[in-house]
Amino acid sequence: MTEILVSEVGPRDGLQSIDRVMPLDAKKRWIAAEADAGVREIEVGSFVPPAIMPQMADTAELVAFAKNIEGLAVVALVPNAKGAERAARAGVDAMSIPFSMSETHSRNNVRKDHPAMLAEIAEVAAIARTHGVHLSVGLSTAFGCTYEGSVSEEQVVRLAAAAIEAGAMELSLSDTTGYADPAQVRRLIRKVRAAVGEGLLTTLHLHNTRGLGLANVVAGLEEGITTFDASLGGLGGCPFAPGASGNLVTEDLVLMLNSMGFRTGIDLNKLLEVRMILVGALPGEPLYGFTPDAGPMLDYHERITA
Amino acid sequence: MTEILVSEVGPRDGLQSIDRVMPLDAKKRWIAAEADAGVREIEVGSFVPPAIMPQMADTAELVAFAKNIEGLAVVALVPNAKGAERAARAGVDAMSIPFSMSETHSRNNVRKDHPAMLAEIAEVAAIARTHGVHLSVGLSTAFGCTYEGSVSEEQVVRLAAAAIEAGAMELSLSDTTGYADPAQVRRLIRKVRAAVGEGLLTTLHLHNTRGLGLANVVAGLEEGITTFDASLGGLGGCPFAPGASGNLVTEDLVLMLNSMGFRTGIDLNKLLEVRMILVGALPGEPLYGFTPDAGPMLDYHERITA
Repeated sequence: MTEILVSEVGPRDGLQSIDRVMPLDAKKRWIAAEADAGVREIEVGSFVPPAIMPQMADTAELVAFAKNIEGLAVVALVPNAKGAERAARAGVDAMSIPFSMSETHSRNNVRKDHPAMLAEIAEVAAIARTHGVHLSVGLSTAFGCTYEGSVSEEQVVRLAAAAIEAGAMELSLSDTTGYADPAQVRRLIRKVRAAVGEGLLTTLHLHNTRGLGLANVVAGLEEGITTFDASLGGLGGCPFAPGASGNLVTEDLVLMLNSMGFRTGIDLNKLLEVRMILVGALPGEPLYGFTPDAGPMLDYHERITA
Repeated sequence: MTEILVSEVGPRDGLQSIDRVMPLDAKKRWIAAEADAGVREIEVGSFVPPAIMPQMADTAELVAFAKNIEGLAVVALVPNAKGAERAARAGVDAMSIPFSMSETHSRNNVRKDHPAMLAEIAEVAAIARTHGVHLSVGLSTAFGCTYEGSVSEEQVVRLAAAAIEAGAMELSLSDTTGYADPAQVRRLIRKVRAAVGEGLLTTLHLHNTRGLGLANVVAGLEEGITTFDASLGGLGGCPFAPGASGNLVTEDLVLMLNSMGFRTGIDLNKLLEVRMILVGALPGEPLYGFTPDAGPMLDYHERITA
């Protein structure tokens, strides 16, 4: 049985996508409960300026809290070197920095073109190395961009190699916009790996905007991807598609992977209970997913022990 | 580019799952509009006793109507020999009969055990041969049953071979209960094909109860499945999962297949407009799907002409 790492990004990607601020205590209960359900990696927040994103103001406290949970890898997003310094001081195990493959998206989101972003990644990598922290670069808008439309695969391959050159220790292909289709997922994984080596591209970060999220996971699994980001309850949603979750829904992803015979180490029934923490802390906030309504199949336990 | 047949089953599977009766005129407009969007096969109804299922009472009229649409294969479901006689007289191109792999499900749904169903299939096959009509047997509950839980793969293989023996001209693996996972889909297709021959298992009929519908399509595509059933707007829903469509949502399936470079012959934008016929004819009825909200990707046309 192959081990697959489900990386929970809800406390970062989910919460930064909604306006309400989840109380620190609820975030802690969420993180602790997911770890207790068997989740082994959680992106607990983002080291962005609190004035810009008050939802993430307590990230350092969350890192300190999560570091005390045995066996949990604690990740935080950093937008730049300043954030990386804060993350390293807070004691993260790993930091991730998004690098937009679409230059228009990069300019609009972080006011940096590609050369400026690569310089930033080099600075962040130096900080990471100094502190012995892992650094993953998220190749965002890798499957298409809401400004530019298609993003050429050759450009993604070139920038992926440049990110490694700048000091990235690992890459993630990120479908920020929900554009990916399964054929494209397989193709782009192969092309990027051909350029940087198989071991450096381990992760897919998928959104479910057009309902293709789990279909793209299957494509990723076929290519040997071993880490998938997901968000409990698909928290955050998609502003352009009222019925669509933001990230992959952790509950549905875990149901699928466990049923297929992959080892995630996650207890689905415990995970489904964690959802209640979100319901309690963010009353009325839309949550997504099919498994929470339908429940596991009657023969779910036979499947996962087969 | 591989051709994939998207078989629209909404006028049968979707409409039989809701209590309201769609007016005949709206059904005709729906069928004509889908055919105009490029859909090449539609299951227009079911030859069940009208007293039991008044939603399907006009199936013979729909067959007559649909037969006049050039290039459209007209399919109807038949539960038994009596239905098959009516379907043949109405002039269908193909009939499909469901054959439940779970004997409990078969007894509860059609009050027949497996030997009785095989006898019925043999009668239906004789009628089909006499009239030169194609006969597909849908191996329902093939991936699990809400009464029995798991259904053994050996049993499915044995019953699949028995159905061919009884005169089935083609088989469909049907995930009636939304239990299938992608690994199971690949495994079961291989096993059934090893028993009956590759050419006799062409079709997957999937439900989206646990959100795994399109993920299972990817698994089916990898195994060379060339026909997928789907229902416009996921009409019919799933009584056990309020957010879940019944069948695969045709709109999402077509977006995925077309984007991946498969040839469906279906114009997605025209298909999305057909949805308005359902909205008009069944006001307030829940419809499903992500693509209708999010719309195609900006670079959709580049993808499909690549």
